[in-house]
Amino acid sequence: MSPLPDLIRRLGSQVLTDPADLVGYSSDASRARPEGLPAAVVIARSSAVAAAVEWASSNYVRVSVRGSGTGLAGGAVAYPGGLVISLAELNKIVAIDPANRLADVQAGVITANIDRAAAEHGLMYAPDPASSRESTIGGNIATNAGGLRCVKYGVTADSIAALEVVLASGEIIHTGSRTRKNVVGYDLTSLFVGSEGTLGIVTAATVRLRPRPVGTTVTFRAAFPTIAAAGRAVTAIMTSDVVPEVLELMDRTSVELVEKFSPTGLSTDGAAALLVGQFIGSTATSDLEQATTMSRRAGAISVEQAEGDILLEARRVSSRALSAEGPRVSSDVALPIARLADMFEAIERISAEEGVPIPTFAHAGDGNLHPSVIVRGDSDEVSDDAERILDRITDTALSLGGTMSGEHGVGSLKHGSLAKQLDPATMAAHRLIKSVFDPKGILTPGRGI
Amino acid sequence: MSPLPDLIRRLGSQVLTDPADLVGYSSDASRARPEGLPAAVVIARSSAVAAAVEWASSNYVRVSVRGSGTGLAGGAVAYPGGLVISLAELNKIVAIDPANRLADVQAGVITANIDRAAAEHGLMYAPDPASSRESTIGGNIATNAGGLRCVKYGVTADSIAALEVVLASGEIIHTGSRTRKNVVGYDLTSLFVGSEGTLGIVTAATVRLRPRPVGTTVTFRAAFPTIAAAGRAVTAIMTSDVVPEVLELMDRTSVELVEKFSPTGLSTDGAAALLVGQFIGSTATSDLEQATTMSRRAGAISVEQAEGDILLEARRVSSRALSAEGPRVSSDVALPIARLADMFEAIERISAEEGVPIPTFAHAGDGNLHPSVIVRGDSDEVSDDAERILDRITDTALSLGGTMSGEHGVGSLKHGSLAKQLDPATMAAHRLIKSVFDPKGILTPGRGI
Repeated sequence: MSPLPDLIRRLGSQVLTDPADLVGYSSDASRARPEGLPAAVVIARSSAVAAAVEWASSNYVRVSVRGSGTGLAGGAVAYPGGLVISLAELNKIVAIDPANRLADVQAGVITANIDRAAAEHGLMYAPDPASSRESTIGGNIATNAGGLRCVKYGVTADSIAALEVVLASGEIIHTGSRTRKNVVGYDLTSLFVGSEGTLGIVTAATVRLRPRPVGTTVTFRAAFPTIAAAGRAVTAIMTSDVVPEVLELMDRTSVELVEKFSPTGLSTDGAAALLVGQFIGSTATSDLEQATTMSRRAGAISVEQAEGDILLEARRVSSRALSAEGPRVSSDVALPIARLADMFEAIERISAEEGVPIPTFAHAGDGNLHPSVIVRGDSDEVSDDAERILDRITDTALSLGGTMSGEHGVGSLKHGSLAKQLDPATMAAHRLIKSVFDPKGILTPGRGI
Repeated sequence: MSPLPDLIRRLGSQVLTDPADLVGYSSDASRARPEGLPAAVVIARSSAVAAAVEWASSNYVRVSVRGSGTGLAGGAVAYPGGLVISLAELNKIVAIDPANRLADVQAGVITANIDRAAAEHGLMYAPDPASSRESTIGGNIATNAGGLRCVKYGVTADSIAALEVVLASGEIIHTGSRTRKNVVGYDLTSLFVGSEGTLGIVTAATVRLRPRPVGTTVTFRAAFPTIAAAGRAVTAIMTSDVVPEVLELMDRTSVELVEKFSPTGLSTDGAAALLVGQFIGSTATSDLEQATTMSRRAGAISVEQAEGDILLEARRVSSRALSAEGPRVSSDVALPIARLADMFEAIERISAEEGVPIPTFAHAGDGNLHPSVIVRGDSDEVSDDAERILDRITDTALSLGGTMSGEHGVGSLKHGSLAKQLDPATMAAHRLIKSVFDPKGILTPGRGI
């Protein structure tokens, strides 16, 4: 007997089984494709997550979890015959607590909405993935998402104070605290942040807010003759005394594709790469002078002030602009900050050797690069050839002391490559944790760790 | 047959069994007392940690780990018949990497020495527990230690990039990365930081360095008629736009005892509490003006600039000064920043009701308080009465949304009280992790989690 009627009995209208819904909830924004339709989708409200997980656990049904489905690593793709739990309706900002600079939110809240609510109190929620107007805080927590402002304020993990998590057993635990310091117990909060739904399902969070930066805002745009020169400028800036609010890079192809997709007047003027940086506050003008000097010393052709909103918007739409061009496979490597120029040179070399364009944009100040291998020929499908070229990029990043994912997560796409980065004993330690939190292997199995 | 000869055969002169050594390595700086002598002490060099743990695991011998033995929660006290592993000789700063702002260090390096080595490159290792000239980075990592500068730069966990850890099996794992961002695998680094030796033994770390603050340094001393008024000033400052380098509090009794112990000319001039704050950088002077205004608004009797080194040194010796007076039991509660005044009022009330002095100093800007209950009468021993009064303080902190330990750790002293703070399901999740990493229960059992 199918156990589905039991799920429907428990959760009523929160359960969707219409084939059109099953299809709609099966994919995310990555190139990973579902291997079949799930059995059901639960649009969770209130305590439905625990009930849904209990049901899945009792029936050995694999569970994938999704917010807005903007993930880029295949973490939210449905399992054939599996259960999709959508947290999109758990979208309440429960409280903003300006006196303690905290916000209590449900997992399905759109990240930018937290920042907007904080702004009413002169505060901000700092992490701002390019997708922040669509992606949910739960998804950001699952992948430990980065973003443009992270170069100054840290990644999602650095802004999470406490979590409510539903475990594979359906039990609910509470991690962290509302204090600035707390050393009681293991740091389960950090363990769950970035765990990609493999250890439990985060249903609510207490996030840290910061003062919204005020004062003079200056944005600059520096053009470089080579992308490696831009990399050297980034290394210099990030090992100086100035701390940019934002320090992003776009190469020539990325700029051209963005202009085609959503014209803003941005241009490289023939340069190989643009660096876009921003400073806010009382030292902004002198910071800009220093960044200008360092950029010129690294070989910048021009450094000029520019309209920040346009530049940052261009960077935010980069991923969509590239995707609009056709199939590509994109990377998310991160490098030690001193190896940026080496990595950019390697990407150029690989592009030349393989004869394919590899447009690259980057959260440069964090050493986090998103090179994309454009799929050649007429194929609509991602080819083995493109994946092979992507592997060359990943291997190069690892050989330079980098990581294969800076912010998108391992998901299904990089799951098979983990052994490239983690030695066997370290991998075994990860798997121990997975096995003890999810002994039946129902929570996002075969992804992340 | 005793397994000791086997340990000696494996590790030679690194093994101490002389009774004088066994006594010397049995206690830490807390009030916890060993219940008996350990069987042996290993002064580990190179790969001895793994060999010693393997031996302990094979023979079901309980292991305690120590650096300088400055811990305040009984985490490093020896087990009767157990094995003490000292990491004090693993004291090499392997490399300072200014280009990536990282330092590679062994676990036994004295924390202040890392900061000193970083200073040669214009960098700093930010976390500075009051014990930083004696305590080791390994001990700081085990407890996720705080310190004076943590109010601006975060606690130890915020400065750890990667770890080498010896597991209970003797296997060695490597967590983290040398990049600013990394989402491959679970955040095992954060899991081990603060785990108090219960999951594995950290033998080496890659720590993050920051630019050493430069520019104008101003230090102020604000005197308040009540400690609660000082608390209100701290809350105001910490929810304003200024970010102090340091924001410490000492009440009248603490100041008097420090002056008796190590005269610096510090005085409360009859006020109930002093707040000591520092600002560094181009905005230091205007920051000071704002802090002065907020302090006066909260009721400060006087706010004046003062010699920073003297004030901060007074704060650093507070703990030793109080200990020199005789037996006391000290607390390490942390509060949400908006509840500081409530907590200070509660401490005054408890002190009055119980008729005992409770001198209090605090990393006030972090909401982390160290009230000490002075043991009454002639007893040289910590009394049940003092412990009961300490429990009242802990319970009050928890009822205000706080935590029972901000930076010292749970150790053996608070192990029995964990259920006050962690609900049963959350506690069970902690114990799952402990059980899977240490199935035989040999690593610092009965302490921390």
